[in-house]
Amino acid sequence: MLHPDYQLRVQRIQAVLQQADIDALVIASNVNLLYIFGHIFSGLAFIPREGNAQFFIRRPQTLVQGEGVHGVRKIEQISEYVDTEKISSIALELDEQTYSDVQRQARLFPNASLHNATSILREVRRVKTPLEIEQIRQGAEQHVRAYSFIKGLYRSGMTDRDLQIEIERRMRQEGSVGLFRCFGTAMEIYMGSLLAGDNAAAPSPYDFALGGAGTTALPLGSNGTLLEQGMAVMIDMAGNYGVYYSDLTRTYSIGTLPDEAYRLHELSCRLHRDIMQQAHPGTLCADLYNECLAIVEAEGAKPYFMGTELQAQFVGHGLGLQINELPVLTGRSKDVLEEGMVIAFEPKFVLPKIGAVGIENTYLITASGAENLTPAPEEIIDLTK
Amino acid sequence: MLHPDYQLRVQRIQAVLQQADIDALVIASNVNLLYIFGHIFSGLAFIPREGNAQFFIRRPQTLVQGEGVHGVRKIEQISEYVDTEKISSIALELDEQTYSDVQRQARLFPNASLHNATSILREVRRVKTPLEIEQIRQGAEQHVRAYSFIKGLYRSGMTDRDLQIEIERRMRQEGSVGLFRCFGTAMEIYMGSLLAGDNAAAPSPYDFALGGAGTTALPLGSNGTLLEQGMAVMIDMAGNYGVYYSDLTRTYSIGTLPDEAYRLHELSCRLHRDIMQQAHPGTLCADLYNECLAIVEAEGAKPYFMGTELQAQFVGHGLGLQINELPVLTGRSKDVLEEGMVIAFEPKFVLPKIGAVGIENTYLITASGAENLTPAPEEIIDLTK
Repeated sequence: MLHPDYQLRVQRIQAVLQQADIDALVIASNVNLLYIFGHIFSGLAFIPREGNAQFFIRRPQTLVQGEGVHGVRKIEQISEYVDTEKISSIALELDEQTYSDVQRQARLFPNASLHNATSILREVRRVKTPLEIEQIRQGAEQHVRAYSFIKGLYRSGMTDRDLQIEIERRMRQEGSVGLFRCFGTAMEIYMGSLLAGDNAAAPSPYDFALGGAGTTALPLGSNGTLLEQGMAVMIDMAGNYGVYYSDLTRTYSIGTLPDEAYRLHELSCRLHRDIMQQAHPGTLCADLYNECLAIVEAEGAKPYFMGTELQAQFVGHGLGLQINELPVLTGRSKDVLEEGMVIAFEPKFVLPKIGAVGIENTYLITASGAENLTPAPEEIIDLTK
Repeated sequence: MLHPDYQLRVQRIQAVLQQADIDALVIASNVNLLYIFGHIFSGLAFIPREGNAQFFIRRPQTLVQGEGVHGVRKIEQISEYVDTEKISSIALELDEQTYSDVQRQARLFPNASLHNATSILREVRRVKTPLEIEQIRQGAEQHVRAYSFIKGLYRSGMTDRDLQIEIERRMRQEGSVGLFRCFGTAMEIYMGSLLAGDNAAAPSPYDFALGGAGTTALPLGSNGTLLEQGMAVMIDMAGNYGVYYSDLTRTYSIGTLPDEAYRLHELSCRLHRDIMQQAHPGTLCADLYNECLAIVEAEGAKPYFMGTELQAQFVGHGLGLQINELPVLTGRSKDVLEEGMVIAFEPKFVLPKIGAVGIENTYLITASGAENLTPAPEEIIDLTK
């Protein structure tokens, strides 16, 4: 039997279906199956606007148990259980399933108009349920613990990639599941990002906060830069300690950095204290971004904010089953913070030749404000000491 | 300037467009951009049935150089360079792009009928070009080298996951890029699969040759099984040493296995020698599968072939920029081997309680036969000795 928390998720989806006057919603993507069923399977989940969700599982058959769970050979067998001809409007995952998959799913409902389940699910998933919050909290704790080992992994003569490999191993030992899920077919990442020196400014095709040249196969993050005296090393790696994600960035140094690096790092910490930690239910996401920008401009730090060659137009984002969820903390956002949202806040600065500085924490929005789920020392840690 | 090999790829695509009477083909997926341009970017590539390919790059702008490469803010600017109204048929990546992305791309060509670029590109990509073969050969060599370190990584008391983490690290040190690309939005994998004991029989939602319970977040591969005396350990990990992939499986043991395990392992090696290594241009892929099955049945090994609870219906597959390309070596295949194809052949057996045995190699189909690109000792190696 499913944990009652999953019933709450079904109800939240059903509330949107009723409001939008849509008969049913179908889920086939791995990430949304995790959301609605707690397990990945090949098949699909059917959420009617009223009544019980039903699950049609091709494989593995070991998951076929409990009420509303049916073993099938092909998804077309849904019509043996659901009066599909009577469905007059259906929401499918238009931003997650391929064109061909959507066409096949749409044919299951020959009389239905097509709506976007991705938008609905991304809206619903913005506000986390109690079980989700518990799992995010647990993962964030493991994430913080994994960071406590980073300093001990550095050896003189390492490249950024050498250090990253040692961190990857330690994180895996601490329970990291490896695979890192992003929203959007164009987005790819492997265990996160480690940026040192000039590579922090290298633009990438992906829409993450910072880039890094990476490799031809994965143009993101570390690129073999030798870690040298005077470099900042920004570590933004693997918060995937279970089904849910957390996001945590800390800055390290090789020896002492120029004063400007410490000043901008402290500015990032101040933005956390003065802006994000003052946020609460009702705060406009656009305000969070614009207030950051105003302070950054007043401090003369705009040319370094969120990149140099290519500057990200956001300072934070929701996260959960994927690393890039809603809301996005950008100047154009219409979103308002709500209790139960989980937000990564990451004001970062890129200093030419030196690297990136600043911190990122994951916050839970509670009735009384923003709770930091990733408390860890915030100062720049010298790896050589 | 692009390596002339990319021009050959454009020509192969154009030959299909001309034969199918399609005006042009558009590429937006990362994997096909790597194929046609050698780099990932945000934007799209436009291949007309005749003339030069054109590339519309949103980011990174650092890639905007050379003839036919245009920097744009949004893909709609293609109409500034191409007479899009005159296109009467367009192939888009219907099995790789989301429904919403395809709709947006289709709107760029308001008078065009829609065709499937994914099928065309998967057909074309089956036969590798000279540069691709060179890169696959190079990656396979690094893959073989990484396997030579596996034996030294085992320590008594390890779980399957502990051993996998040590192998991951060593593979990363040998140049593994980390990220592992699969075809199909439902497919996910992280650095490959390590299966020991009963976990080798656990079915998974994914369509790989074998499963393994894995974790809730990624139900595939190792699941924390303690490596104990008498277990077979099948290692099928990370052939991602560059942009191209190779596939390589070897079987290890903890101490001595029952005779049946060695018999079935030798049967797998025999299938490689007698069937795959005898394959040549013109061989039917279905014959390769059916001949395997006939020998396996004659040896009374059918109940263990490619799984027990859930048996895969194929014994090999093409690979290249993704781990699961065409052709598939299955009984239903209509494909014929051609010179330049690269095929992973993986006859495997799962023995209840013991684990999986057998080997997998990557073969290049040449004019004279199948060349093994992953030569490495094939016998079961005892990790405790």
